[in-house]
Amino acid sequence: VANEFALISRYFKRAPRRARLGVGDDCALLDVPTGQSLAISTDMLVAGQHFFPGTDPYRLGRKSLAVNLSDLAACAALPRHALLSLALPEANEAWLAAFSEGFWSLADAWDVELIGGDTTRGPLTISVTIMGEVDARHALRRDAARDGDVLWLSGCTGEAALGLACLQDSHPGSEMSGALSAVLTDEQRRQCLKRLEDPTPRVLLGQNLRGVANSAIDISDGLLADLGHVLQASGLRADIELSQLPCAPALKQVNDQALQRRCLLSGGDDYELLFTASLSMTGRIQDIADALQLPLTRIGTLHKAVGDQIGLIRLHEADGSLFHPQHHGFDHFAVASDQGGERE
Amino acid sequence: VANEFALISRYFKRAPRRARLGVGDDCALLDVPTGQSLAISTDMLVAGQHFFPGTDPYRLGRKSLAVNLSDLAACAALPRHALLSLALPEANEAWLAAFSEGFWSLADAWDVELIGGDTTRGPLTISVTIMGEVDARHALRRDAARDGDVLWLSGCTGEAALGLACLQDSHPGSEMSGALSAVLTDEQRRQCLKRLEDPTPRVLLGQNLRGVANSAIDISDGLLADLGHVLQASGLRADIELSQLPCAPALKQVNDQALQRRCLLSGGDDYELLFTASLSMTGRIQDIADALQLPLTRIGTLHKAVGDQIGLIRLHEADGSLFHPQHHGFDHFAVASDQGGERE
Repeated sequence: VANEFALISRYFKRAPRRARLGVGDDCALLDVPTGQSLAISTDMLVAGQHFFPGTDPYRLGRKSLAVNLSDLAACAALPRHALLSLALPEANEAWLAAFSEGFWSLADAWDVELIGGDTTRGPLTISVTIMGEVDARHALRRDAARDGDVLWLSGCTGEAALGLACLQDSHPGSEMSGALSAVLTDEQRRQCLKRLEDPTPRVLLGQNLRGVANSAIDISDGLLADLGHVLQASGLRADIELSQLPCAPALKQVNDQALQRRCLLSGGDDYELLFTASLSMTGRIQDIADALQLPLTRIGTLHKAVGDQIGLIRLHEADGSLFHPQHHGFDHFAVASDQGGERE
Repeated sequence: VANEFALISRYFKRAPRRARLGVGDDCALLDVPTGQSLAISTDMLVAGQHFFPGTDPYRLGRKSLAVNLSDLAACAALPRHALLSLALPEANEAWLAAFSEGFWSLADAWDVELIGGDTTRGPLTISVTIMGEVDARHALRRDAARDGDVLWLSGCTGEAALGLACLQDSHPGSEMSGALSAVLTDEQRRQCLKRLEDPTPRVLLGQNLRGVANSAIDISDGLLADLGHVLQASGLRADIELSQLPCAPALKQVNDQALQRRCLLSGGDDYELLFTASLSMTGRIQDIADALQLPLTRIGTLHKAVGDQIGLIRLHEADGSLFHPQHHGFDHFAVASDQGGERE
């Protein structure tokens, strides 16, 4: 039976190439190149809260890094180093082998070095801290959106939420028991589950938006909730054209319009980038979309706001009327489901 | 009822003075001065594993930062920034208020800025990542101990383990039910609990050892286990004089010699520094002890080793015989209690 240190060594210890000192000392030591700032972010994933207890460990290893890479992307930073802390109910080697394989598959793809962490017994919890480099003048911040900015969205939202609905659908007593299985093809269902369990961080997009976008955020809590963070930080309000929102084929197939809208606007776990840029950047953004072969869609505009209007999001239907959603986003501690507060 | 974002803001969001960007964006942004490396470390504390579920939240807030400051100390780094991730079973404001008050009391004492983190619902888990600055040439590493180095210990070990034994003692069916309450004074018991729940990271000592010590480690898993890490990393073996080990009054009072030795050698949670230095540094180290009013004690010596001898620790009794301990240190995943393997 391997002990804690042997387990860590076997699956997570690799000699650092870039850091001065990696896994295995009290601290890791790293250098930040002159002119660059260190961008750092951390996310904690808890079994039963962020993922179902039986989730494929390979995908979980990927996702635990992906959600952090997504934060670096939203900041336009170059991924460099990561710390990984794990609480595990038992020293399950098969689980660790698959989890670490998934983690490394994404770490290697983005040239991220694992330089430290912690391992302990406890309810399955994964805490990753990620570090990257960015020239602070080009870092994309939430508080730098401007009056008149165009609001852009990468890819599309809602598939991850639909994937989650599919998983819940397969549990007895669920809200919409069996309804989804009937309308989605196997391929669509697989695609939605992949979006949920193995999201693609938009790292290259973030780096390409340096000097192009004014602000950015990654969509983890849902489009409306995360847009709300940008608006609050920048003191603005927004108009969104609902007809402009890109809609994945699987989502189009859902007959329930309320569910469809909820997935699109408040689903969360999308890890797309929501960014704002002045109108004059439109051509450059379209060039970036072409170069990365990633759809970038204009979905609205931002406007000056004062007082109560700060954070207001108006959702325009094609006929000119306004849509009033019931859910704004995911809040781990909200008591009522619309706790985030309706903004209009 | 406050939602997640309001809770975070109320207790943990403060405008950064040093970092370019703090809590509230996708990433925090910080700069590392030219000539300095970033030292970074992370520790995860899980309820029921690292602390009893009902532990005083103020002390828990302090300890969650203290154990990380201790890692910076062992590396000789200057504390600068921290990230705090919390999984909480419920949004308990009284708990959060006390926890954050404890956290900030230590953060302010060491001028540490909280620049980010994560909050989620889940079994009570605290993950802190700490960052500091150190000239890499002066960082104290585990792999830099040398043949002939004197082994030094700050303060004394064993009180935290005795504090834990006191807490376990008060639970029915414990190993030594009631035995400890009989021998310790109330003041000794309080002191041992304080060592366990509110340890003092040896931050100033670490910084003073720059250019003086060859290597250092903080004692979290127990003196023998942590010394073992230094010996393995440096390819050495050690001789320890048991009569030289400093012994706190409370520990002296314990009649059970096996328990006493176990606390001293394998207790863990001490957060003292174990460091090695060449004999010629003895005077300077005694000066540091005087300046910091912190006892620094010579407890042994390190020697060249090959093959199986690497990592060997010989414990010498006053009469020249060798002591063979049953426990080496704490291992979260060890199945047998002596899983660490006896080294002699």
